[in-house]
Amino acid sequence: MSKILVIGSVALDSITTPSGCTKEILGGSATYFSIGASFFTAVNLVATVGTDFPAEHKSLIKSFGVDISGLETKQGKTFRWAGSYVDDLNCAKTIDTQLNVFAEFKPNIPESYRDSDFIFLANIDPDLQLYILKNLKGDKVVGCDSMNYWIQTKGEALKKLMKNVSFVFLNDSEARLFSGESNIIKAGKFLLSLGPKFAIIKRGEYGAILFTEDRVLLLTPAFLLEDVSDPTGAGDTFAGGFMGYLAKTGKIDTDSVRKALLYGSVMASFTVEDSSVNRFKKLKKEDIETRYRKFRELTMA
Amino acid sequence: MSKILVIGSVALDSITTPSGCTKEILGGSATYFSIGASFFTAVNLVATVGTDFPAEHKSLIKSFGVDISGLETKQGKTFRWAGSYVDDLNCAKTIDTQLNVFAEFKPNIPESYRDSDFIFLANIDPDLQLYILKNLKGDKVVGCDSMNYWIQTKGEALKKLMKNVSFVFLNDSEARLFSGESNIIKAGKFLLSLGPKFAIIKRGEYGAILFTEDRVLLLTPAFLLEDVSDPTGAGDTFAGGFMGYLAKTGKIDTDSVRKALLYGSVMASFTVEDSSVNRFKKLKKEDIETRYRKFRELTMA
Repeated sequence: MSKILVIGSVALDSITTPSGCTKEILGGSATYFSIGASFFTAVNLVATVGTDFPAEHKSLIKSFGVDISGLETKQGKTFRWAGSYVDDLNCAKTIDTQLNVFAEFKPNIPESYRDSDFIFLANIDPDLQLYILKNLKGDKVVGCDSMNYWIQTKGEALKKLMKNVSFVFLNDSEARLFSGESNIIKAGKFLLSLGPKFAIIKRGEYGAILFTEDRVLLLTPAFLLEDVSDPTGAGDTFAGGFMGYLAKTGKIDTDSVRKALLYGSVMASFTVEDSSVNRFKKLKKEDIETRYRKFRELTMA
Repeated sequence: MSKILVIGSVALDSITTPSGCTKEILGGSATYFSIGASFFTAVNLVATVGTDFPAEHKSLIKSFGVDISGLETKQGKTFRWAGSYVDDLNCAKTIDTQLNVFAEFKPNIPESYRDSDFIFLANIDPDLQLYILKNLKGDKVVGCDSMNYWIQTKGEALKKLMKNVSFVFLNDSEARLFSGESNIIKAGKFLLSLGPKFAIIKRGEYGAILFTEDRVLLLTPAFLLEDVSDPTGAGDTFAGGFMGYLAKTGKIDTDSVRKALLYGSVMASFTVEDSSVNRFKKLKKEDIETRYRKFRELTMA
C-alpha cells in the first residue's frame, strides 16, 4: 500500500442546482480528491486556506484519516467559488471566483510527506505543478488534472508537465480544447503523444475513456443515478478513487488500471448524491464494494 | 431462427457532414434496419418508393438477402430527406423533408411475410404502427421506434402503441420529451411504465441504456471511432443488429438481450464509417464477430 500526496485547492463553494442553493460549503479539488482516495489508502494533503476557514471543515477532512499537516492557514480569506448547474447538470457555469489566499499559493511539502509514492497534482497553475515535481525526490507515480483556463493561458507549461506525469485526467471539453481535435479518440491520442502513459477523459454522466499506448484501453459508462444532487467534485473524487485504488494495490498493470477506472466512477457517483462531501460522512467501505459489483453487473455483457 | 418483418421508410437522403455533401443517396429507416438485421436473420421489408427510385438501390437492398416483395412502387416521387451534421456529429439538423409517396403510405403486408415472428415498426405515424399490429395475427415479438414529431403530435396513439410492444427504441432527447423527465433513468422508467418489457435509450456516441423491469439492466458505451463519416442510420442499424440478433437466437432472456445491445452497437459503428449503407457492401460476418469481441474487451473490467 502506497501513500498519496495531493496538492490542490481547499475552497468554500456556493452552488446553485435545479433543486436549490448552497452557500460557502466545503469544496476544492484537494478536498474531494483526498476524501475519495482516503477510502483506499493514506492521503497527505497540501493546500492553503484563509483564517476564515471553519475549524469543523478541517476536522471533517481529518476524520477521513487524511493527513492535513500540509494544509497551511494564511492571513486572509479562503478561496471561494460560485457556480451553477441550472442549465445543465453536466456542466458547471462559473458565476464567481475569488482566489484570495489561493492566489499566493506556494506549495510546501512537509518532510513527513516525502514517503508518498503516488502524487496527484490537482487543477492548479501548471508552473506550480512543475515546481512541485522538481522538488520531489525519487520515483513517483504522478497524476494531474488541469482546466480550460490553463490550457488557454499556459499551454506550453502544461505540455512540459505532460512529459513528467503517468496519468492525465481531463474532461472532454478540456481534451478537445488542448488537442484542437473534436473527435475524442484523436484528442486522447494527442494527450498520449505528449508523454503520459495513460490519459483519462472524463465525460460526466456519459462515463470515461482510458487511453494507453496509442489505443483505447477501456470505455466505461457512468454509474447513473436517478437523483443527482450536486455534481461538484465528481471529477476530483473520480481521480481520488482511481489513484487511491492504484496506490492501494501498488501496481500499474492493465488489470489494476481497468479496475481503478470503475472505482473512480463509483466514487464519483457517491459524490453527486449529496452536496459537498456529505455523502462520504456515512459511506462505508462495503458500500463501495457493493456499488462496484453492481456497476460491473450493469456494464458487463 | 425467426424471420423479422420491418415496416418503415426507404428514402433518398442528401446529407452535409463536416467532411462534405452527399446527394440523394440510399437511406430510410427500413433500409438501414433491414440491412443491419440481414447479417443475423431473414428480413422482410415493407415500404413504399416512387417511380423515380433507382433500380440499383432495389438490387442493393436485395443483395443482402432482404426480401423486398413488400416494397411497393407508387406513381410519384420517393421520400426525400436532407440533413446536416455540420454543427454536431451527434445530432442531425433537418434541412428539408419531402414526404412524396410516403405521405400516403398504407402498409400492405404480403401473405408470404406472415410467418415473421419478429416485427420492427420503424419511425412512422403511430396510428399506422397500431394499424399494422391490429392486422398481424399470432404471437409476435414487436419493437418500435418513434421521433419527436410523433411524440408532440400523436402522444396518445404512441402511448397506446407502447402497450403492445416488447421493445421501444428512442434516443435520449426523444425519451426526455416523451416522459417530461430530464433525468435519463426516470425517462427510462416512464417508458417501461407504458407497457414495453424493454426500453432502449440510444445516446449516439455516448452509447445506450437498456431498461427492464423497473431497473437499469445494462449500460453500454458506443464503440468509438476515430473517423466518423456520416451518422445517418446509426440508430436504425443499431435496432437492426439488436432485433436481428434476438431473432436469430429466438430467445428473449437477459443474456440474449445483453448481447443484442452489444451487437446493435457494433452494427451502428459500421454504419457511421461510410455514407449510406456503403460500409455493409464489403462487411463480412467475421468482421462483426471481430468487432464484437473487441468491443467486449474495451468495455469489460
